[in-house]
Amino acid sequence: MLGFGTVGTGAFRMLHDNKKAIEDKIGLPVEVVRIGVKDLGKDRIAPSDLFTDDLWSIVDDPSIDVVVELIGGTDPACSLVERAIQNGKHVVTANKEMMAKFGSRLVQSAKDGKLDLHYEAAVGGGIPLIQPLKHQLAGNDVLQMMGILNGTTNYILTAMQQEGRGFEEVLKEAQAKGYAEADPTNDVDGFDTMYKISILASIAFGKQVPIESVYREGIRKVTKTDMAYAEILGYRIKLLGIVDAVSSESIRVRVHPTLIKKDHQLAHVNGVFNALWLRGDFVGDLMFSGRGAGSDPTASAVVGDLIDVGRNISANGQGSAIPYGTGMVTEPIDSLVSPFYLRLLVSDRPMVLSVIATAFGENRVSLAAMEMKALDEGLGEIVFLTHPCRESDFQTALKQIGEQDVVDTVANWFRVHDSK
Amino acid sequence: MLGFGTVGTGAFRMLHDNKKAIEDKIGLPVEVVRIGVKDLGKDRIAPSDLFTDDLWSIVDDPSIDVVVELIGGTDPACSLVERAIQNGKHVVTANKEMMAKFGSRLVQSAKDGKLDLHYEAAVGGGIPLIQPLKHQLAGNDVLQMMGILNGTTNYILTAMQQEGRGFEEVLKEAQAKGYAEADPTNDVDGFDTMYKISILASIAFGKQVPIESVYREGIRKVTKTDMAYAEILGYRIKLLGIVDAVSSESIRVRVHPTLIKKDHQLAHVNGVFNALWLRGDFVGDLMFSGRGAGSDPTASAVVGDLIDVGRNISANGQGSAIPYGTGMVTEPIDSLVSPFYLRLLVSDRPMVLSVIATAFGENRVSLAAMEMKALDEGLGEIVFLTHPCRESDFQTALKQIGEQDVVDTVANWFRVHDSK
Repeated sequence: MLGFGTVGTGAFRMLHDNKKAIEDKIGLPVEVVRIGVKDLGKDRIAPSDLFTDDLWSIVDDPSIDVVVELIGGTDPACSLVERAIQNGKHVVTANKEMMAKFGSRLVQSAKDGKLDLHYEAAVGGGIPLIQPLKHQLAGNDVLQMMGILNGTTNYILTAMQQEGRGFEEVLKEAQAKGYAEADPTNDVDGFDTMYKISILASIAFGKQVPIESVYREGIRKVTKTDMAYAEILGYRIKLLGIVDAVSSESIRVRVHPTLIKKDHQLAHVNGVFNALWLRGDFVGDLMFSGRGAGSDPTASAVVGDLIDVGRNISANGQGSAIPYGTGMVTEPIDSLVSPFYLRLLVSDRPMVLSVIATAFGENRVSLAAMEMKALDEGLGEIVFLTHPCRESDFQTALKQIGEQDVVDTVANWFRVHDSK
Repeated sequence: MLGFGTVGTGAFRMLHDNKKAIEDKIGLPVEVVRIGVKDLGKDRIAPSDLFTDDLWSIVDDPSIDVVVELIGGTDPACSLVERAIQNGKHVVTANKEMMAKFGSRLVQSAKDGKLDLHYEAAVGGGIPLIQPLKHQLAGNDVLQMMGILNGTTNYILTAMQQEGRGFEEVLKEAQAKGYAEADPTNDVDGFDTMYKISILASIAFGKQVPIESVYREGIRKVTKTDMAYAEILGYRIKLLGIVDAVSSESIRVRVHPTLIKKDHQLAHVNGVFNALWLRGDFVGDLMFSGRGAGSDPTASAVVGDLIDVGRNISANGQGSAIPYGTGMVTEPIDSLVSPFYLRLLVSDRPMVLSVIATAFGENRVSLAAMEMKALDEGLGEIVFLTHPCRESDFQTALKQIGEQDVVDTVANWFRVHDSK
C-alpha cells in the first residue's frame, strides 16, 4: 500500500475484519506486506514493522503482486504507478486526479502488460459506477450523465437549503467537523467533481476527456437568497457534474451549481451522499446512490477491486484493464442550450421590466417564470427563469441588462436542468 | 439465441443499432447466426433464414461461440444451457427461475469448462445488480438487501396508491395495457420477486438459497383501505424482496407486501421502476434504481453480458464465472422480529380496546400507533402499528384477537419495515 490516510486505514481494516470471506472469494491468501508513508512517526492501526518511508522500495519489491496507490495527486503517484506496472504489478488506485489526467496512458500500459489497473474508488466512493459503465452498460449509447460526486459540497448545499444558512457559515462548520479541508478549493471550486465526471465521461465515451475542456464553476456563488427562490420555484440547487452527448462524435462536460426540479431523484440526494443519474439509449434512466466518500465506503471499492485482481491472479488470467483512447472531442459551454435562473436588484421604477424584457427578447431569450419583491431603499428584487436558450445569447443579454441604469445589480445567475 | 420474445427482439435490435460501438469494445465481430423459436410462422424483425424451431441444433452447432438463452422457465431451458456448456459454449441468460433453482450447478459447470455464464438480465432488467454484488461489493458483509424487483406489482401498487383504486380494477387495466399477463400469478403472487431476491441472496452470501425456504406472499391482499391508512400513518405499501443477515451463518429471505416509511428511498420507486437497496458493513447504504423490465432495458443487460463474453473470447481468457455453493442456511419467518400493521373491524362497544390490548400484552406485543374510525351499523375500524415483535407472538395475538366476541373481522395485517 502506498499511503495510509483515511482510505488506506479503512482498506487495511476491511482486509483484516473480513479476511476469511475475502480470501474465500479470491481463492488465495491476502497479505499486506508493506505500507509506504511520508511520516513514519505517526501512530497507526497497522503493525509498525509494515511501514516504510521509501515508496519506491515497494513498487520495486519483486515479492509484491499488487500495489494499492492511495497517496493522491499526480506526483509522485503517477511515476510510482507507472513503475509498478513496468515491474509487472497489478494496481488498484483511488486517485481521481491521476486517472482524470493520465488514465488513458496508465490503463493502456496495464493492458499491454496483461495486468489489472482498477480505480473504482476514484469516483463515488463505495458506489459501483466505473465497472458498471465499463461492463453491464457497455452496449448503450450514453445520452446524458449527471452526478452529485462531491460529498463536501453536497453537505454544504444541503445544510444551506435545510437550515437557511449562508455559504461561509456552513463551510466553517464543515471545516470544524472535518467534512471540509482547511483549504477547501479542491471541493468547493469543483475540481474534485471535474476529475470524477471526466473519468466517467472518458469511460462512457471511450476516449479521455481533456481536463482543460471541462467547464467548471464551484459553489461559492450560491447564497441563501438563491436557495430560497429556488425552493419557491420548485427547485433545489446541487453541484452537478454533467455530460451531454452532443453529436455522435462530441460531448459537453461541465461542472456547476444547477437548479434541479424537486421531483428529480437527484434533488433528494442530501448530505454527504453521492449519486449518478444516467440515461442510456436502451437502458433508459438509471440512478446509483450511496456514500461517496469516507474511510469505510471508499475502502469497500478498493477491496472490491483487490478481490478482482486476486481472482485474476488466482485464475492465471490476462488482466481485465479496459483501455480507452485520447482526444475526446468536446463542445464549449457557449453552445449549451439550457434554461437559466437570474436574480436582479433593480430600481423600483416604471419601465424596469420593459427594459429587461427587451434585452432578453433581442437575444432570443424567452421567459418561463418570474418572482418580484420590493426591497428597502427603493430597490426591487426580480428573479427570472428562462426557457431553454443558448448560453452565449443568455450571457449577451445578461451583459446588456447589467448596463441598464434601472438595474442596480446582477445579483446572481445559474443554469437550470432541463427536465425534458 | 434461444427465444425471440420481448427481450430477444430488444437484444437483436441493440446488437444491430449499436453494432460498431459494441464490436469496438469487444475487438471482434458479433453476428447472430441462429435464432431458435417454437413457432416459425410469426413475423419478426430478424431475417427469416436465421430462425429454426430445432433449439438443440443451436446448442450443438460447433460454429457457435455463445448461446443467449431467453426462453425462460426450467424445461427445456436448463437442459439446453447444460448442453451448451458441455459443448464449450459461453452462455448469457435472463432466466431467473432457472438461475434461482439451478444457478449453483450451472455456474460451477461453466467455471469447470473455463466458460462464462452471465445472468445480469435475470434480476432488475437493465439495472446493474448481479455483477456489482459479485465484484465491487464483494469485500462487504451484506447486512440487509431490500428490493422492488417486479415491475407489474409495483405498477399496480403505485396506481392503487396514487389513484385510490382497488387491486382488481388496476390489475384488469394492467392486463389490458400489457403490463400484466392474462395469468398474473407469477408476478402478483410474488414468485418472480422470490426468484430474483433468491439469486441476489445466493450471490451476496455465497451459497444458493433453497427456493422453498423463501417466505412468500403476494399483493392480492392489499386493499385501497389499507393503502389509505398507510398514507395517514406515513407509509407506502410496496412488494419487497428482503434478505436479512441473521447470524454469521444464516439469513432470512422473504417476499411480502411491506409498509415502508415515506422518507425511505424505496417508497419513491414508482410504476414499472425497480430498485435494490443494500446495506453493507463497509459500504453503508446504497441504492440502485432503473427500469427493471421491458424489451430495451433487459436487452441492455443481455448485451452488456455479451460484451464481457466477447472480451473474454478476444483475450483468450479463462472465463469469469464466479461459482457459489449450495445449502444456504435460512431462518423461518416465525422468528422474524418486525413491527406489524393490523386493521380490525370491531363492535362499537365499551371494552373493545381493553380486550385487544390484553391479547397483545399477553403475547409481548406493544403498540406504537393507533387510528380509530366509527363505521356504519355499530362497527368501528381500528388500525394498529406495533413496535418490533416476534412474528410468532404477533400471529398468536392475532388468533386470540380474532376469537373475541367484540372483534367482527381481522380485516388485514402487514409487516412493516423497521427503519432502524
